[in-house]
Amino acid sequence: MEKNPLTLIGTQLVRSDASEKVLGAAKYVDDLHFSDTVYLAIRTAEVASGALRSIDISKARGSHGVLAVLTHADIPGENQMGSPVPDYPILLKPGDEIRYVGDYVAFVVAHTREQALRAAEKVTVMVAEKKPVLSLNERIRELQKGGDYVPAVHQKIRKGDSDPKTMFDSCDYVFEGDFFADYQEHAYLETQGMIALYDQDNVMTIYGSMQCPYYVQNGVARALGFPINRIRIIQSVTGGAFGGKEEVPTYFAIPAALAAYHLHRPVKLVLSREEDIQWTSKRHPIKSRYKVGIADYGRLRSIQVEAHADIGGHSTLSPTVLWRSSVHAAGAYEIPNVRVDVYGHYTNKVPSGAYRGFGSPQVFIGIEGIIDDVADHLKKDRLYLRKINALEKGKTTPTGHLLPESVGAKKTLEEVERLSDWERLKERVAQFNREHKHLKRGVGIAHIHYGVALGAMGHALDASGAFVNVLPDGSISVHIGGTEMGQGAKTVIGAIVGEVLQQPMEKIHVYQTDTFFLPDSGPTVASRTTVFSGNAAVLACQELLKTLTALYSTEMAVPPQSVRYTGGVFSNTEGQKPVGFGELAGIALKKNIGLCATGWFQTPRLTWDPENGFGEAYVTYSFASQIVVVEVDCLTAEVVVKEVYTAHDVGKALNPDGVIGQIHGGFVQGMGYALYENLKVNEKGKIVSDNFNTLTIPTIHETPEIFKVSIVEEPFSKGPFGAKGIGEPSLIPTPAAIANAVSDAIGKRVREIPIRKEYLLDLIRTAP
Amino acid sequence: MEKNPLTLIGTQLVRSDASEKVLGAAKYVDDLHFSDTVYLAIRTAEVASGALRSIDISKARGSHGVLAVLTHADIPGENQMGSPVPDYPILLKPGDEIRYVGDYVAFVVAHTREQALRAAEKVTVMVAEKKPVLSLNERIRELQKGGDYVPAVHQKIRKGDSDPKTMFDSCDYVFEGDFFADYQEHAYLETQGMIALYDQDNVMTIYGSMQCPYYVQNGVARALGFPINRIRIIQSVTGGAFGGKEEVPTYFAIPAALAAYHLHRPVKLVLSREEDIQWTSKRHPIKSRYKVGIADYGRLRSIQVEAHADIGGHSTLSPTVLWRSSVHAAGAYEIPNVRVDVYGHYTNKVPSGAYRGFGSPQVFIGIEGIIDDVADHLKKDRLYLRKINALEKGKTTPTGHLLPESVGAKKTLEEVERLSDWERLKERVAQFNREHKHLKRGVGIAHIHYGVALGAMGHALDASGAFVNVLPDGSISVHIGGTEMGQGAKTVIGAIVGEVLQQPMEKIHVYQTDTFFLPDSGPTVASRTTVFSGNAAVLACQELLKTLTALYSTEMAVPPQSVRYTGGVFSNTEGQKPVGFGELAGIALKKNIGLCATGWFQTPRLTWDPENGFGEAYVTYSFASQIVVVEVDCLTAEVVVKEVYTAHDVGKALNPDGVIGQIHGGFVQGMGYALYENLKVNEKGKIVSDNFNTLTIPTIHETPEIFKVSIVEEPFSKGPFGAKGIGEPSLIPTPAAIANAVSDAIGKRVREIPIRKEYLLDLIRTAP
Repeated sequence: MEKNPLTLIGTQLVRSDASEKVLGAAKYVDDLHFSDTVYLAIRTAEVASGALRSIDISKARGSHGVLAVLTHADIPGENQMGSPVPDYPILLKPGDEIRYVGDYVAFVVAHTREQALRAAEKVTVMVAEKKPVLSLNERIRELQKGGDYVPAVHQKIRKGDSDPKTMFDSCDYVFEGDFFADYQEHAYLETQGMIALYDQDNVMTIYGSMQCPYYVQNGVARALGFPINRIRIIQSVTGGAFGGKEEVPTYFAIPAALAAYHLHRPVKLVLSREEDIQWTSKRHPIKSRYKVGIADYGRLRSIQVEAHADIGGHSTLSPTVLWRSSVHAAGAYEIPNVRVDVYGHYTNKVPSGAYRGFGSPQVFIGIEGIIDDVADHLKKDRLYLRKINALEKGKTTPTGHLLPESVGAKKTLEEVERLSDWERLKERVAQFNREHKHLKRGVGIAHIHYGVALGAMGHALDASGAFVNVLPDGSISVHIGGTEMGQGAKTVIGAIVGEVLQQPMEKIHVYQTDTFFLPDSGPTVASRTTVFSGNAAVLACQELLKTLTALYSTEMAVPPQSVRYTGGVFSNTEGQKPVGFGELAGIALKKNIGLCATGWFQTPRLTWDPENGFGEAYVTYSFASQIVVVEVDCLTAEVVVKEVYTAHDVGKALNPDGVIGQIHGGFVQGMGYALYENLKVNEKGKIVSDNFNTLTIPTIHETPEIFKVSIVEEPFSKGPFGAKGIGEPSLIPTPAAIANAVSDAIGKRVREIPIRKEYLLDLIRTAP
Repeated sequence: MEKNPLTLIGTQLVRSDASEKVLGAAKYVDDLHFSDTVYLAIRTAEVASGALRSIDISKARGSHGVLAVLTHADIPGENQMGSPVPDYPILLKPGDEIRYVGDYVAFVVAHTREQALRAAEKVTVMVAEKKPVLSLNERIRELQKGGDYVPAVHQKIRKGDSDPKTMFDSCDYVFEGDFFADYQEHAYLETQGMIALYDQDNVMTIYGSMQCPYYVQNGVARALGFPINRIRIIQSVTGGAFGGKEEVPTYFAIPAALAAYHLHRPVKLVLSREEDIQWTSKRHPIKSRYKVGIADYGRLRSIQVEAHADIGGHSTLSPTVLWRSSVHAAGAYEIPNVRVDVYGHYTNKVPSGAYRGFGSPQVFIGIEGIIDDVADHLKKDRLYLRKINALEKGKTTPTGHLLPESVGAKKTLEEVERLSDWERLKERVAQFNREHKHLKRGVGIAHIHYGVALGAMGHALDASGAFVNVLPDGSISVHIGGTEMGQGAKTVIGAIVGEVLQQPMEKIHVYQTDTFFLPDSGPTVASRTTVFSGNAAVLACQELLKTLTALYSTEMAVPPQSVRYTGGVFSNTEGQKPVGFGELAGIALKKNIGLCATGWFQTPRLTWDPENGFGEAYVTYSFASQIVVVEVDCLTAEVVVKEVYTAHDVGKALNPDGVIGQIHGGFVQGMGYALYENLKVNEKGKIVSDNFNTLTIPTIHETPEIFKVSIVEEPFSKGPFGAKGIGEPSLIPTPAAIANAVSDAIGKRVREIPIRKEYLLDLIRTAP
C-alpha cells in the first residue's frame, strides 16, 4: 500500500488526558474508593543501623480501631522484596540487621489511617543499635585501604588501551578533576499510594501510582506465594514519577496486598509527604574522579573515570543505575582509550534508586567540566572543542559501539550555536560582566548522549506489547504495557495508532495499564515507551490493516494488491468503491472477523561483553546540547538562570508539543538539582528536610524567561516513525550546563551539585 | 508433533468455580460494593395498553433521599432498546403507546433502594387506557380473517412438495392434531442486577448478571450515544440464566448506566423476585397445528405445521426464537415434504424471549405426540417408528440440510432402548396398570435434534474469541468471549486449555468475561460456548505451543521438526534435553518472547435460502432420546415421574460430569415446564403468580430416583476434541416425553403443557 502523508504525527496535538486532569476528574489512587476499605500504616525501624532484638505488638493490637498488626510471621510467601539483589526483607524479624531508618518492622491495619498511625507508634521495637555508616567517603577509604571490603556494585568499561599506566602516554595534555553530585528528591506531585483488594475473580488486584506494573506483579506474587496469574496490577492515574515509581511502588504494594490477603478487605496505603521523602529512593550521590588525555590540538584520546556511588541501605536498582553511569561516564564523544570504574557502596541511608537520567547527570558534570578545562587551557572555543570530539555516524562510542545511523550529536551543537547566536552571546555576557561588579554572568555548555531503553544489561526486560481492538462502530481501544505517568504516553501512542489506522484522536482511547492485557512488557523507564510501546502499537495496527484490507478485497471484489487506503477510506486503485474505516469495522462484525491484534516489539539484539564492559550498550542514543546563561550575585551567591538554548535529537518528534513539554520540565528539574535541592541527612540517618517547607525545588518563578528549543530529527530506523526517547535527555545536560555556567561566571570550576550557597561563596572567595 | 493421550478431557473434573460457590465467596452482583453507590427504582406504566398522556415527577423528586428522577428527556443517545426490531423505547414519552405493564416511565435514583421505590410510586402517570389484547387466540382469529392484520413475525420452512393442496396426496395415512405450550418462567436463583459506574478510565463500566456482555455493550452505547470503546461490560458471577439473561439484562443495564451518566456515581439496580417475574421475558406460548402424512408402513412423507406464538408487548428476540421453532418444528426426522409456518403475534403481555431450547420444546410436543399417534394407529412400536424415520449421516433434515457427519440420532434411540430394557419396561408398566385401578403408569418417548449455535439466521454473531496469556512462572490466564453462568464454561474451557498445553487445571484461571479483552464474541446462548469459546481457546493455545516450540528449538539447538512435547515437557525426539512448560515460560520472558495469543473461531459458512426457508440451518446438531415413566393418580390428577432413561449425542463429552449435570438440570427444568409451572396473567395484563409461593417449580423432592444417562459420542470434526452442545438438548425432549407418558397412562392424547390438573382431570374424565 502507498505511503500516506502524516496527519497526526508531528502535528500539534491536544493531550488526551489534559481535560480530565485540568477538570479534576482524573482519579488518582487516593480518589479510588472501594467499600469497606481499611487503612495501613507502616512501623519502621527508626534507627539506621543495628540488630533487631524483639518486636512487641500487643499494645498496638489493642489500640482503638485496629484490625490487624502484621509482622514477618504473617508473610505467606518469601520475606524478600529485593530485586535483583535479595538484600531487602519485607519485614524484619528478631536477629535481622537494620540497614536504614525506613526498614519495615510491622504493618498496622485499622479502620482509619489515623488509627493505624497511632497504633503503629505503639509497636515496641528493641534494637541493639550500631553506629551507622552515613558517609560515602568512609566507604571509599575502606576500598582504598585494600582490605577485604567488597563494594556492593562494580561496573566497568574498557576500550582500547585501558591500562592506567600507559593509556595517557600518547597524550599531549592530561587534565584531572574531582566532582560530586549529591541526592535529588523526585518530588512528584502525588506521593506513593496503593489499594489492594480481592476482586470478583478472587484475584489479588492492586491499583496504584506506579511506572512498572509488571515489577509490582512479580514482587507481590513472590511475597504472597501466589502464581502470577492470580495477581493483577492496574495502574491508577499517576501524578508524576521520574523514576521514583520504578522499583519503589512494589515496597508499598506488598504491605497493602499482605493486609488484603489476611483481612479480605480493600486496603489503602497512601504516604504522607514526610513518609515519602523519608522512605523512598533518591538520585544516587556520586563522587567521581576524572582524568582526560588530549592529543592533536584538542582531540580526546584517553579517559579514566573512577566513580563512587552511595547506594544506601539496600541495593535495589543500583547495579543497573550504575551500569548506566559507567556507559555514559566518558561523555558523548569519540575517545579511543577508555577506562571507567563505577563502584556502589552500602551506607545506612535511604536506598538510592532510579531517577530520570538514571545515574548519568552525576557523571556528565565531570566530563563536561573537564572539557571546559581543556578548551580553556588550549584557548579554544568550548563549543568548537565539543564539535571536533562529537560522535558521528560511523564513529564508536566510549563503549566501542559503532553507530550506524541516527547520530544528531553535531547537529544539536550547531543548533544551539545558531539559537544562541553563540559569538554574540559570548560578547553580550562579557559586556555585562565588564559593566557589573558583583553581578557576574556566565555561559555554560553541555553536550550529552543517552542510551535509549534498557540496553545490554536490561535486555531481558526489553520487549513490549500493545493490544488494539477496533470496535464495530470504528472506535478504537488501545492497551499498552507501558504506562502514562504524566509524560504523555497516552497522547503519543494514540497518535501512532491514529496515524497508522488513519483515524482521528477522538476515536481512540488509550486505557490505564492493566497487567491482564499483555505479557510482561518491562518497565516504563529509560525513555523507552515511545519506541517500545509505540512500535508494538504499530505492529498491532499493521496487522489490523492487513485484516481489513483482506476483508475489503473480499467484500468489494477488488484484488488485494489493488486495495488503496487513504484518508481513512478503503478503495480500489481508482478510488472507487469507497468504504470508510468505521463502516468496514461494522462489516467485519457481520462477517465474523475479529478486529483485535496484539503487537509485540522485541528489542534488536545487542553484542555486549559484560566481562570487559565493551560493546553495543543500547539500541540507539538520543543526543542533546544545551547552553545556559546564569547570573551570579557574588555577594549572596544567589544564582539565576537567565537564558536557555537547547537542542535535542529525538529521531522524530511524534508529538512536538509533548517533546517541548518534556524539555521544559526536564530543564526545570535539572535546574533544581543544580541549584536548589538541599536534602540533608542527620547523624541518626534521618532526612531532616522531609517536606516542601525545608526541601526546596524550583517553581514557575524560577523558570527562565528566555528558553529556546530546537528539535533535531535524525530518524532511528527501528523507532516508530523514526522516534527515539526524550524523557530523560531533557534533564541530563542541565546540571552540567549550569555548573559550567556558574564556573564561567565566577572564574572557578564548580565541582559540586547542588551548588549550595556556602560552597559557592567559598569558591567565589578563593577565585582568582 | 505427536498426539498425546488425553489427560483432562473426558476425565472426572472438579468444577473450577465449585469451591467459591459452595463457600459463599463468589461475588454476585449484589455482593459487589463501590463507595457512594446509589440505588435505582423503575416506575413502569402499570397498565397493559393505552396512550401515555403525561408524567409528573415533581412529588417523586421531592421524596426523601431522592437524587434524580429521569425521564425520556434525559437520554443522551437513542431512546430505543429494541433489537433487532426497534419497537421498544427505553422511557415512554407523552403520546407513546403503552404495550405492557412493564414499560418504563421513569427511573428514580436515591440513597437507598427503599427510598427509590417509595419515590417511584409518587411518579404520577396519566394514561388513556385501552382494552389490552391478552389472548393469542384473538390474534390468530385476526390473521385467519385475512384482513390487513400483519403478524410481527413469520418464519417458514419449505422442502420438497410444500403445496398443502398436493403434499399429502401420496401419503397412505394423514394425522392431525393441535397442541399448546404455555409460558415458562426462567426462575434463575439470582434475579437480574446491574451496577454502572465510571471507572478510572472515564469509561462507563457495567458489572452485572448476564449471558451476553456484548449485547449489553451495544445497547448501552446506543442509549448513551457513546462510542463502543467507552463502554466496558464485566460480567459478575451469574447465578443462573437459562436464556433469561440473554436480551433482558440490557434493559436493566441501560437505566443504571443512564443514572451513572447523570449522577457520576455508582448506580445499583437489583430486582426483587416480583419485579423480575413481572417484567422479564418468559418462554413463548405457542399454539400449533400439525398435519403429518405417512407412507410405506410408517415412513414420514409430508408434514405441515402452522404455529402461533405470543411474543408479548415487544418483539425482542422473537424473530430468531421463532426461526428456531420453524427449523425444529418437523422434528428430528427425515421427511421429504415439509411446510412450516411460524407466526409471532404481539399481545399486551410481558415480552417472550430466549429460554433454554429457544422455541423448540414447544414444537417438539407436537411432532412427538403425532408420532405416537401414528405408531399406535399402525400398531407399531413407538421406538421402532422413530428409528425408521431417524436422521442418519447422508440423510437430509427437514430444512434440506445434508448431514455429513456426527449424527448419533439412532444411537441415542438404541441407547435408551438398552438403558430402559425397553420390552421389559413396557411389560412392567402394563403389569402395574393391570394391578392398579386409579394409579396408572405410562411410558413416553421423545426424540429430538438441536441445531448447535446461532445458525444461518444468527450467522453474523457466530464467531468467538479466547485470549490466553502464559505468565513467566507457567501459570495461565484465560479470558473468553463466552460467559460462565453456572453451566460450567470455566471448567470446560480450563480443561481444553490444560489439555492442549498439557498443564494441570490448578495452573489455569479462567476469568469473568470482560468486553475489553476480546472483540464481539457473540452471545453465550444456543449451546455454543463449548464449541465456540472452546475452539478459540484451542487456536490460542496452538499458537502459544508454536511459539514455545520455536523457542525451545532455538534455546536447546534442536531442529524444530524434532521437538517433542509430552506430559508438559519439551524435549528432542529421544526425550533428551527436557525443559518443562513453566521453565520454558520463564526463559521466554528473558528472551523477550511475549507468550499471549488471541484465538478467533469463525463459524463455518452455511448455505441458507431465507426466502424459501431451506438449506443448512446450523453448523451441526446434537441429538437426544428420552424415555420416561410417569404415574398418574386418576382421582387427583397428580403426576409423578418415576423413571428416566436418556441418551445424548454430544459429539464428545469434554467434562462428562458436567454433561451429566446439565442433563439432570435440563430434565428437571423440562419436567417443571411439563407438570408444575402455572404462570397466570390477569385481565389487567399483570402476572398473578409473581413469586415462588404462587409460581411452582420442581424441587429436589420431585427429581426422579431412577435416572439413567447414556452419553453418545459421534464426534463433530469442527468441535474442540469433537464436542457439540448439551446446554439446551438436555431439556428439550423432556416436555414431549412427559406429555407422551401421561397420554400413555391415561389413554388419551395430552395436547397442552404445563399439564394442569383441571385440564388433566377433564382428559381423564373423557378418556375411553
